[in-house]
Amino acid sequence: MSGTSNLDKISQGRLSYNWALKSMKIISKITEKYEKRKPLAGLDLAFCLHITKETSVLIMAARKLGGNIILCSANPLSVQSDILEFLKDNEIIVHAKTKMNEKEYLENIKKVLNTNPDLITDDGSTMHLYCHKMGSKNVIGGTEETTSGINRLQVLDTKKLLKYPIIGVNNAYTKYLFDNRYGTGQSTIDGILRTTNIFIPGKNFIILGYGWVGKGISSCLRGLGAQVTVIEVNPIRALEAYMDGYIVSRIEEVADKGDFFITCTGQKNVLRKEHIDRMKDGVFIANAGHFDVEIDLRYIKQQDKNPIIVRPNVDSYNINGKTVNLLSKGRVLNLVGGEGHSPEVMSLSFGNQLLSILYIIENHKKMQNHLYPVPKNIDNTIAKYALEAFGIEIDNPTKEQLDYHNEVNIQI
Amino acid sequence: MSGTSNLDKISQGRLSYNWALKSMKIISKITEKYEKRKPLAGLDLAFCLHITKETSVLIMAARKLGGNIILCSANPLSVQSDILEFLKDNEIIVHAKTKMNEKEYLENIKKVLNTNPDLITDDGSTMHLYCHKMGSKNVIGGTEETTSGINRLQVLDTKKLLKYPIIGVNNAYTKYLFDNRYGTGQSTIDGILRTTNIFIPGKNFIILGYGWVGKGISSCLRGLGAQVTVIEVNPIRALEAYMDGYIVSRIEEVADKGDFFITCTGQKNVLRKEHIDRMKDGVFIANAGHFDVEIDLRYIKQQDKNPIIVRPNVDSYNINGKTVNLLSKGRVLNLVGGEGHSPEVMSLSFGNQLLSILYIIENHKKMQNHLYPVPKNIDNTIAKYALEAFGIEIDNPTKEQLDYHNEVNIQI
Amino acid sequence: MSGTSNLDKISQGRLSYNWALKSMKIISKITEKYEKRKPLAGLDLAFCLHITKETSVLIMAARKLGGNIILCSANPLSVQSDILEFLKDNEIIVHAKTKMNEKEYLENIKKVLNTNPDLITDDGSTMHLYCHKMGSKNVIGGTEETTSGINRLQVLDTKKLLKYPIIGVNNAYTKYLFDNRYGTGQSTIDGILRTTNIFIPGKNFIILGYGWVGKGISSCLRGLGAQVTVIEVNPIRALEAYMDGYIVSRIEEVADKGDFFITCTGQKNVLRKEHIDRMKDGVFIANAGHFDVEIDLRYIKQQDKNPIIVRPNVDSYNINGKTVNLLSKGRVLNLVGGEGHSPEVMSLSFGNQLLSILYIIENHKKMQNHLYPVPKNIDNTIAKYALEAFGIEIDNPTKEQLDYHNEVNIQI
Amino acid sequence: MSGTSNLDKISQGRLSYNWALKSMKIISKITEKYEKRKPLAGLDLAFCLHITKETSVLIMAARKLGGNIILCSANPLSVQSDILEFLKDNEIIVHAKTKMNEKEYLENIKKVLNTNPDLITDDGSTMHLYCHKMGSKNVIGGTEETTSGINRLQVLDTKKLLKYPIIGVNNAYTKYLFDNRYGTGQSTIDGILRTTNIFIPGKNFIILGYGWVGKGISSCLRGLGAQVTVIEVNPIRALEAYMDGYIVSRIEEVADKGDFFITCTGQKNVLRKEHIDRMKDGVFIANAGHFDVEIDLRYIKQQDKNPIIVRPNVDSYNINGKTVNLLSKGRVLNLVGGEGHSPEVMSLSFGNQLLSILYIIENHKKMQNHLYPVPKNIDNTIAKYALEAFGIEIDNPTKEQLDYHNEVNIQI
Repeated sequence: MSGTSNLDKISQGRLSYNWALKSMKIISKITEKYEKRKPLAGLDLAFCLHITKETSVLIMAARKLGGNIILCSANPLSVQSDILEFLKDNEIIVHAKTKMNEKEYLENIKKVLNTNPDLITDDGSTMHLYCHKMGSKNVIGGTEETTSGINRLQVLDTKKLLKYPIIGVNNAYTKYLFDNRYGTGQSTIDGILRTTNIFIPGKNFIILGYGWVGKGISSCLRGLGAQVTVIEVNPIRALEAYMDGYIVSRIEEVADKGDFFITCTGQKNVLRKEHIDRMKDGVFIANAGHFDVEIDLRYIKQQDKNPIIVRPNVDSYNINGKTVNLLSKGRVLNLVGGEGHSPEVMSLSFGNQLLSILYIIENHKKMQNHLYPVPKNIDNTIAKYALEAFGIEIDNPTKEQLDYHNEVNIQI
Repeated sequence: MSGTSNLDKISQGRLSYNWALKSMKIISKITEKYEKRKPLAGLDLAFCLHITKETSVLIMAARKLGGNIILCSANPLSVQSDILEFLKDNEIIVHAKTKMNEKEYLENIKKVLNTNPDLITDDGSTMHLYCHKMGSKNVIGGTEETTSGINRLQVLDTKKLLKYPIIGVNNAYTKYLFDNRYGTGQSTIDGILRTTNIFIPGKNFIILGYGWVGKGISSCLRGLGAQVTVIEVNPIRALEAYMDGYIVSRIEEVADKGDFFITCTGQKNVLRKEHIDRMKDGVFIANAGHFDVEIDLRYIKQQDKNPIIVRPNVDSYNINGKTVNLLSKGRVLNLVGGEGHSPEVMSLSFGNQLLSILYIIENHKKMQNHLYPVPKNIDNTIAKYALEAFGIEIDNPTKEQLDYHNEVNIQI
Repeated sequence: MSGTSNLDKISQGRLSYNWALKSMKIISKITEKYEKRKPLAGLDLAFCLHITKETSVLIMAARKLGGNIILCSANPLSVQSDILEFLKDNEIIVHAKTKMNEKEYLENIKKVLNTNPDLITDDGSTMHLYCHKMGSKNVIGGTEETTSGINRLQVLDTKKLLKYPIIGVNNAYTKYLFDNRYGTGQSTIDGILRTTNIFIPGKNFIILGYGWVGKGISSCLRGLGAQVTVIEVNPIRALEAYMDGYIVSRIEEVADKGDFFITCTGQKNVLRKEHIDRMKDGVFIANAGHFDVEIDLRYIKQQDKNPIIVRPNVDSYNINGKTVNLLSKGRVLNLVGGEGHSPEVMSLSFGNQLLSILYIIENHKKMQNHLYPVPKNIDNTIAKYALEAFGIEIDNPTKEQLDYHNEVNIQI
Repeated sequence: MSGTSNLDKISQGRLSYNWALKSMKIISKITEKYEKRKPLAGLDLAFCLHITKETSVLIMAARKLGGNIILCSANPLSVQSDILEFLKDNEIIVHAKTKMNEKEYLENIKKVLNTNPDLITDDGSTMHLYCHKMGSKNVIGGTEETTSGINRLQVLDTKKLLKYPIIGVNNAYTKYLFDNRYGTGQSTIDGILRTTNIFIPGKNFIILGYGWVGKGISSCLRGLGAQVTVIEVNPIRALEAYMDGYIVSRIEEVADKGDFFITCTGQKNVLRKEHIDRMKDGVFIANAGHFDVEIDLRYIKQQDKNPIIVRPNVDSYNINGKTVNLLSKGRVLNLVGGEGHSPEVMSLSFGNQLLSILYIIENHKKMQNHLYPVPKNIDNTIAKYALEAFGIEIDNPTKEQLDYHNEVNIQI
């Protein structure tokens, strides 16, 4: 890559950063509030995130608060090259390149850990797990962005194996209610349109998993006219999907009926041989979950060694004489096949991240080696900042109402 | 009331009971499972509930499980006379009549408590509070149906004043997700249509409160073509309403714009002089919250001593020369102005009630004088029963998936 | 009926009339505009309509414009007794009573025709057909409210058998777009809730017919969380239903799957033995079309001579050991089982009626014995009046835009 | 451009053609039916269309039916280079290149006309207008794809200036109901997401125009959680938007409130100085109408000669110190900023085109120089083919029902 093109990339990266910054007013508000105090001064902060324009806003904000940043990517394929160059140009240490193989990706995580960071911000908990394996010397605490990552940490916590306190940012209301549901919903639509340009009205979409991500995707698809069938193993969620007006069924019942299958279960092999073999000719299958384990990719690849790349991110496999179109190689569709979350929705998640990092810096001595939820008042603060950013004013309870809630209503 | 008309009522009550029973398959499943064992034998169970056909199904089921039932009404105006007669005819002791004044209503609660019951099932916690005041001799535990009631108990619990363990049934997912949201949503529409027959498309509805009830009402109204504005003091809920696509505003901004105001905040005087004075001529105001405190009724009644009853449950007040239509006297619209929840949705709530009662009977010695959530496995059981009742089958996780969730995903 | 109760009814009727009048601002606007001129003076106007509070507003307006009114009912079961008495008290000649048999109903139509009216306003075209049979001496023209009625007249028109010009009011945009779709949609929900109180979320509703009425009902039901399947014989409408996101199927495929069937096809026996025999135990069937011919009632009544009336307007038939619940005896559900259209939506339809009557008075000499659509400028006038009534202001095209549309855009 | 890269383009074009062909089953059905007969043999067919993969399917089908094709582009910026090369490689004569200026674009239209075609298929009627100016020697008839084009032809027809019969394909139900509404709705979402990646939930979208395109866009945006305000000068459409639950307002009222403005009026300068000057900092404005006249581009360009291209198809203008983001230079957003219609929806439009062309060939001698609608039976045929393509079966009316509709219902 020549110097000139690097300059172009840097300047394109700066444009992207500024574009995102404008939409991430929550981060700007936090930065303004703490910039003078430099609460992150003297600290080495490791970040393992998708390297996007939104991440660059978080990173630059952490730098403005005084932090020393070392960054790597949370996914081998989710690095945006212009942002990479822009960050490097701003003297952020980044261990990543645009397309890595699995090994390079993991090596980069290790390189970051070898710098002995004070705090780890992760997306998927791969870095947290490596840190627990490799030793966590200086680490005073960490944060984790996703459900999948938190699930992993929960297992460690239950077994009392956590070596430092971690705040599971995903469990903030202002994270999962908005990022997972509306954010992933919208960006999955983006991924569907870009990869396939399928005509959505009337199409039979099968959504596997009705957590927040499944809810968001289902709602957006229905909003565009699709017929949505939900597959769910949890009876409460299945009941909710049913009463939300979706068809609820077993995957066996609909494997041969769906036009488009999307997995978002956090689980392994939810689409496998027995389902894929019965699918319609020309079917689309995609994954919206964090890890690429939800579709049995090994089976698909065994059936056809030379799939045709008919469009970017659409690999057409010939399986038993029928065409099965696998999107974005089974990796998370909204990020790999689409542009990913809007800066505005990332502003909510990363606002929680930033305030959680500040919280740990201040409170880590009082914290135990547990998985913590985002403190309630951080959650409320982010919601207030978000409403301000959107120009929405709300009422405050009256004195009488505060009293009523606290006391009066138990008098008879 | 003559004997003949009583016979008619009993027979009408039986018809209503059978109608409800057919839709409340969850209760039937529980009854079948426990009927032989008679786990409630020898126990005096006090119930303070809206006396409806659905309640009669719960009451008769509790009797079939061996219980001795004493019943009163959770609201002075929510007693259905045919059900009253049907229950009496089935030797249930009922302290209630169809239209009571406040005093009679409270007297009846006391009469029930004077029988020294072993267990109390309440809706609104008025009976629980009286019991705490009057003494709770025999009481081994209780359950509470609503959010409003749980809020009251929470205050007592925080102050360590609870005298017996209580399960807050409302906090079961299979209760609040479905009953509060979908159930109250639909039955509030019923209340709106019956009382006003207003043409909903395009109308400007102002919903005060965006808890589950507010969510349900907003969604149903939008589904019928209304424009919905949400008023909410909690920033996280306000943000959720905003991203759900509703207008979010301050009540001052919209007091003169709304065609129809519905309160569902659990709070006091959320609609008061300063708002009512600015409302449009011909406006409708209604309450969907448990208690009739959300609208400042005192102010309204002071302005016009002789409102015209233009239709059943519509009182037209002349306030400063404009007509303000108060629905169902500010009492809960879906029950007083409409028919209330469908038996099917009550089946979810009352299924949780019945299994929670059984749980307390079995576990009360191990329980402390606290407010408890519904045990997770009761919640799951009810969801499974509900899916069965609706004819929905779902998948089970595979062995591989159970393992993945527990272990594999923390290996690197 | 005693004098006292008549007085009560009159006064209740006046209350209902005033209530409706307040919501029917379009009628008030027209009345105000023409009241002084008395354009209907000296004319005998025959009306064959559902005798409701909204009809009373139309009738009283026609009287204020100078007309001599003779009224009968468009349906044996749709007469509201208080309105009947109120109209009589206002010296309107009414040939109707609250519950008539088929013979009485037809006799009353003939009685009205025997007065030799100058103009006929009908709902269903039964009066128009009788008039064509009996002779139409004085009639200078007529109007017709419904699709079903217009279909009948179309047949006559095609055969050149019409004896006077008729304006098919239903074909006004401001009629069918709003009355048929939104009006019938909402009032059918009212009918469903009042007759059955069924819990709508998740329920499988089968809608037969996807004309405007079917569209409205389907949209409202989906808005309340139902799963909707559409049955339609017209391929274009079927395609539209499919792309609107509904399941589209053949009735044979879903006869045993539906929880609730609603016919709105304008056709005969769309639900018949072969479907009814396969329905689920406890199914609901209802008709939302004008005539009670859409369900094969003869078959149902043959199977069970003594259905149980489990709730008002719910007749439970035992057919082959299963319960089939027929609502409002197969008559139009929104009127018989519910309260019917809101005054506001009737204001649109009746505004078109009133202006169409005035149009015929003025133009009948220039008109031929044909079925005419509502003149475009009447349609636009009603839309403008409606927007004013709802407080909505819209823009006007600029001079430049008017020119662009007319001329400029064909220059190259 | 080197030979090698041309080969790549051809092969990429073939891949795109095959991809589209697979989704355009309606075209395949028509091709199969007529292929042997070659009904277009010996005819020169001029096509002025957006040169996309879907158009290539229509063109290749017309060729298979024997036609001699000469093609140019309906828009200077809507030519896909791979398709261009693929068509040329298949010996289709194409007068177009990927990015043309206005002059080149018009020159190409003239070049096509200079070949003296027998039949003209146009999109926007620019070719039809030129043909009327330049002389139409051999032309026996034509077809027109869009509303905008038909509006132009309507003016000519009213003035009796049409020189050959033209079928306005857009007026087929199976065209405008689906292509304009659902097709443009979805592809406008695609354009919004690709150009801006704005977070849609809660955002205030102002849609100018509530024709089919406006309806489709509004519905999709609401389905994704946006708040939608409709601006419309036609009172009937405004009323429809209001009852569809949208905010209806005047542009002056909301110019400073909208986050995103989309024009789809078919009109000139609907967004102009007086509105743009009052818009929020960072606002987005886009056009979804056929011509780029709906936004006053001249005014915008006068304010800032050097807008920043912040992202592809996003030009940031500095207007009075505020940023106004103009998308896809005011040209039609779904085609220029997004991928345009899905092949499936184009299959409906182009199916109507193909059958209309065949109809003209067969019937042109009986036709007059008028603008004709698509014959009803073509419309129905396309709907049937579409249902087949989507795997949907529908019922046929029974014998009894056919009779009922024709005769029985006028007997009394």
